[in-house]
Amino acid sequence: MIEERLAALKVSLPNPPKPAGSYIPVVKTGNLVFVSGQIPVKDGKVQFQGKVPTNISVEDAQSAAKLCIINALAQLKDELGTLDKISKIIKVSGFVNSTPEFTDQPKVINAASDFLFDIFGEKGKHSRIAVGVASLPLNSAVEIDLIAEVT
Amino acid sequence: MIEERLAALKVSLPNPPKPAGSYIPVVKTGNLVFVSGQIPVKDGKVQFQGKVPTNISVEDAQSAAKLCIINALAQLKDELGTLDKISKIIKVSGFVNSTPEFTDQPKVINAASDFLFDIFGEKGKHSRIAVGVASLPLNSAVEIDLIAEVT
Amino acid sequence: MIEERLAALKVSLPNPPKPAGSYIPVVKTGNLVFVSGQIPVKDGKVQFQGKVPTNISVEDAQSAAKLCIINALAQLKDELGTLDKISKIIKVSGFVNSTPEFTDQPKVINAASDFLFDIFGEKGKHSRIAVGVASLPLNSAVEIDLIAEVT
Repeated sequence: MIEERLAALKVSLPNPPKPAGSYIPVVKTGNLVFVSGQIPVKDGKVQFQGKVPTNISVEDAQSAAKLCIINALAQLKDELGTLDKISKIIKVSGFVNSTPEFTDQPKVINAASDFLFDIFGEKGKHSRIAVGVASLPLNSAVEIDLIAEVT
Repeated sequence: MIEERLAALKVSLPNPPKPAGSYIPVVKTGNLVFVSGQIPVKDGKVQFQGKVPTNISVEDAQSAAKLCIINALAQLKDELGTLDKISKIIKVSGFVNSTPEFTDQPKVINAASDFLFDIFGEKGKHSRIAVGVASLPLNSAVEIDLIAEVT
Repeated sequence: MIEERLAALKVSLPNPPKPAGSYIPVVKTGNLVFVSGQIPVKDGKVQFQGKVPTNISVEDAQSAAKLCIINALAQLKDELGTLDKISKIIKVSGFVNSTPEFTDQPKVINAASDFLFDIFGEKGKHSRIAVGVASLPLNSAVEIDLIAEVT
């Protein structure tokens, strides 16, 4: 069902990107799954690099945030078999590679939040932080991790 | 009971501030509630802005941290009906809008930790991180999220 | 058993360092334990200070990350009595005190991830974030918190 929704949104999930480090993408405990921090990788290459807003626009950073969510969903599908097991998105942590002056982190991470709502509806409504950080792995513009509840 | 304690501390909870983005303030899963990142907003306006310590003193940043907690409690009251359902504060994540040289993040976030202990007593003792970040939403001096356990 | 493994790795756990603030090192809820952010303290002194890579090399930051894990395990042993109660490491959050140009946070935090795998084997495989932050408490090079599942 969620996958039909993704198809309607013309979103195709990639083969989940490998973690850039010695850890695993998804860990389950009880009814919770913790997804490792995702960066805007596609076809093995970081698509959105640099600091917002000097190297990369808010609009492109929003695309980066969306790509992080696509990668998180790919990891979850790989782990769970189907995204229909997700009963709720609990928490999204959004880290934006920011200049010291940039203060529109919520605008960037809204793209991730809106996208989750588009896909999951009410189940996609989550708690959230959005902060600006000095730098990110592989010079990614955005890094996002999430916690979901599964049945 | 907690609300009597708040009154004794002369703390009044505001109408909970709306999230500055497309997400929700509190999500519950099992016995845990996740509160979205709170900023030092009062009456719709961020009260403490800028970087510690150049634009804003440690003392003012401590007031900002306390205001973040007040807003988190307002959100929790709105969600739970009463703060008496909170059986434990589990985790506080404190993000301080810092210059690259500032290293007293614990002093700032201690104001939040002490305040939670004042209000909740032993139940208010939590785990914590305190980090310095490059920038925060709406140029807030501090952003704090928390996880609580409820009965 | 885990302690024999630590001995084989020639790791001795210190008396757990006191939190640099008014909070507690470990909080338990259900089967989860939340460990507060650990910094690379040894014998009461921060061993690795400054920003990566200008003040401190990636190699030294890796040693800092490992020391953060040692301190986290010391806290967990103090709380749980024995590390054998740990059934899984769920989540590691790694904050690296970074220049705005540094993008190898995963290399630094890999030292923590590899170390957890060395100690706990499959149970040590965790989800993770690694981000670069503007500054950290006491000018620590690295701060790491973690969530573990216990039996």
